Amino acid sequence: MSAASTAKRRAGDALDIVALERGGHASYSACGIPYWVAGDVGDVDDLVARTPAQHAENGIDLRLGHEVTAIDLDRGEVEVADGGSGSGYRIGFDRLMIATGAVPIRPDLPGVDAQGIFGVQTLDDGAQVIETLASRKPRRAVVVGGGYIGVEMAEAMVRRGLEVVVVDQAAEPMTTLDPDMGRLVHASMEQMGIDVRSSTPVEGFDAGPDGWVRSVVAGGAEIATDVVVLGIGVRPNVELADAGGLPVGDAGGLQVDLRMGVKGHPNIWAGGDCVETFNLVSQRWVHVPLGTHANKHGRVAGTNIAGGYATFPGVVGTAMTKVCDLEIARTGLRESDARVAGFEFESVTIESRTRAGYFPQSRPMTVKMLAERGTGRLLGAQIVGREGSAKRIDVCAVALWNRMTVADLMDVDLGYAPPFSPVWDPVLVAARAAVSALQG
Amino acid sequence: MSAASTAKRRAGDALDIVALERGGHASYSACGIPYWVAGDVGDVDDLVARTPAQHAENGIDLRLGHEVTAIDLDRGEVEVADGGSGSGYRIGFDRLMIATGAVPIRPDLPGVDAQGIFGVQTLDDGAQVIETLASRKPRRAVVVGGGYIGVEMAEAMVRRGLEVVVVDQAAEPMTTLDPDMGRLVHASMEQMGIDVRSSTPVEGFDAGPDGWVRSVVAGGAEIATDVVVLGIGVRPNVELADAGGLPVGDAGGLQVDLRMGVKGHPNIWAGGDCVETFNLVSQRWVHVPLGTHANKHGRVAGTNIAGGYATFPGVVGTAMTKVCDLEIARTGLRESDARVAGFEFESVTIESRTRAGYFPQSRPMTVKMLAERGTGRLLGAQIVGREGSAKRIDVCAVALWNRMTVADLMDVDLGYAPPFSPVWDPVLVAARAAVSALQG
Repeated sequence: MSAASTAKRRAGDALDIVALERGGHASYSACGIPYWVAGDVGDVDDLVARTPAQHAENGIDLRLGHEVTAIDLDRGEVEVADGGSGSGYRIGFDRLMIATGAVPIRPDLPGVDAQGIFGVQTLDDGAQVIETLASRKPRRAVVVGGGYIGVEMAEAMVRRGLEVVVVDQAAEPMTTLDPDMGRLVHASMEQMGIDVRSSTPVEGFDAGPDGWVRSVVAGGAEIATDVVVLGIGVRPNVELADAGGLPVGDAGGLQVDLRMGVKGHPNIWAGGDCVETFNLVSQRWVHVPLGTHANKHGRVAGTNIAGGYATFPGVVGTAMTKVCDLEIARTGLRESDARVAGFEFESVTIESRTRAGYFPQSRPMTVKMLAERGTGRLLGAQIVGREGSAKRIDVCAVALWNRMTVADLMDVDLGYAPPFSPVWDPVLVAARAAVSALQG
Repeated sequence: MSAASTAKRRAGDALDIVALERGGHASYSACGIPYWVAGDVGDVDDLVARTPAQHAENGIDLRLGHEVTAIDLDRGEVEVADGGSGSGYRIGFDRLMIATGAVPIRPDLPGVDAQGIFGVQTLDDGAQVIETLASRKPRRAVVVGGGYIGVEMAEAMVRRGLEVVVVDQAAEPMTTLDPDMGRLVHASMEQMGIDVRSSTPVEGFDAGPDGWVRSVVAGGAEIATDVVVLGIGVRPNVELADAGGLPVGDAGGLQVDLRMGVKGHPNIWAGGDCVETFNLVSQRWVHVPLGTHANKHGRVAGTNIAGGYATFPGVVGTAMTKVCDLEIARTGLRESDARVAGFEFESVTIESRTRAGYFPQSRPMTVKMLAERGTGRLLGAQIVGREGSAKRIDVCAVALWNRMTVADLMDVDLGYAPPFSPVWDPVLVAARAAVSALQG
């Protein structure tokens, strides 16, 4: 819808835009669902950026419940199934934008189809969880997966008063961090009363006579529960595009160029969680499902579709989340990524504070930083800390964007005042430590 | 003390370090004084980063109450008055570090020497204000000056329950911002119950029969008050250095090179609020009294004094503060600075939110951005907003450091998650608006 809105705004009547969505909602913030479940967001309508009526007003023919079932590149048509009437039709296009998003990975395990096992991908998923919390008043929850969705849903369940077990096959939660930083997340979650079981693959689910899940079998143990949330991750939803003959890359997403055009197909565009994105640090194509990228992809694609010029130059891998008051952020490469990319590097970890030490809201934060040997170039950074920590990752993101060295970063004139930072901002302290490490 | 500590840590016994301080305290955070007065910081000792005992333990001969009264470059000696004994002595040096700081500007106005009129520069100043609040239980305060110290002391007095009038000769408070952004600060301060009188120069002070101030005469009116705080600004304290024959620049500070060496004097070093600093955007020498710079200057000078190599490359003009929950930040050039420097530029101002709009702690923030015509280079940014706004200026500071264009900044992969940012970070929204403005 971001592409549609941008294109319509630019081209006006020169473009007829039809938007086909198989679900019942459009233009909503999927990232907001955990906060809706947690109770931060009162009304589901708050998650909707633009209503179907607003899109209609803007001249976009948005058809909810209409699923594209095939893309016919030769004829320049798509095949549509209208979920309401049950009938199908074909519709021609001059330009096609593919924004099929990602689908949650649902493990092929015994009992996974029991009732009470929820994904958290769509507004309907969120509504089901909320309805279950209200009607069944569950006491215990198991969250499967310790990534972004996993830790966010663990917070949501804790704040709803449930006893929460997080079952995760990885050695530590938040594998988008290095394990030593993930360990900090693990310890903090335990302090919040969340039972985090790492290195514990799920083997199956057991349902009661009513068909509702009653336990999760994981790591040889049976964990009794009243509800299960799956947060295992997502994969690009490219079946349709793949079947239509469009190029899919090694990371599983559609291959696009700088302008979000599908490679080799001048009139086909794509964006959001179904495409691959270029990581400017590793110089590899990766799959980064994230609302902010999706929105920017849409704006770039929409501009180009309307005959303008815009590019999406890539990402440096910035992402963040929180679990209750623990903030987690990362950008650039982890140690494992840096090794795969062939970098030799030093890695440092420092402890600092979010504000001047004497300031009452001063909180601890840990910053890890990787820098290339020889050049001293910043390769990545990770932050785990309390309120006021996470958004500091942006400094490192801009530094990565500019291929800065840690020696140069160490000197940058960052904002200082006691309510906002120690005299040396924690990011600068980390950069200074990295400089020392590089000097041996 | 930062220079002394750094040099001692590097050089150990190879350097004998004597530190001469005329006051009764060293190594304290002057920036913390308003928060001490406000009640955020309970104990004055919390403002002291290192005690005299700790310095002694580290092998630094710190002499409190010892005032340097002259610098004799020819002999390589300083003249010292020992406030305690009343006697004087001379002490020789191989290397001299000058860190005389800044002195508050005290207007030469009738009645300015009345009791109850305080500066906020030293711990003793802070202690006097706190003692006055306790003993005299004042009901009303006038703060003279609407800059950093002025607005911070206005907050402190409001939080202490006083009725506060800020009297300021400038058209709007916070002249380190453009007036249109200062106007937002003005309006917010009024909403907090602070009576802000702009374009109102102070003409004098009137004391009661007991010698205590009872009113401020400003803009032709008499403002009754029980206590006055002066926050008019500071100037580099260079009398001593000037008299000793050391070079003082147009901005009033000591002239130093990249290594914090005083220009033309190989064995003399200087740093902190008494020196001039190079602004990398305007390419002019400026006076920026700020604790974070002072601390970095000390580290650079100390490294070099100990025979190492370190540089302070300059600043981009980042600074921030808050008044109650209003956050204020700036970096780079204001419109007036940009004009003086000869830039042609576009300037844009956008309204956004600190977090996703549906997130409960989402707060409004305003970002102003200046970009050079032709090149599109970012020239400066200003932020006024609620909790979560100010530290976003760091993104612009790193962008200025790297001479980024607003078109490049617009694309940077900044951190996103609903508790931390809208899908488009406000800084990116501003950059996007600047790109549009440049395109006409």
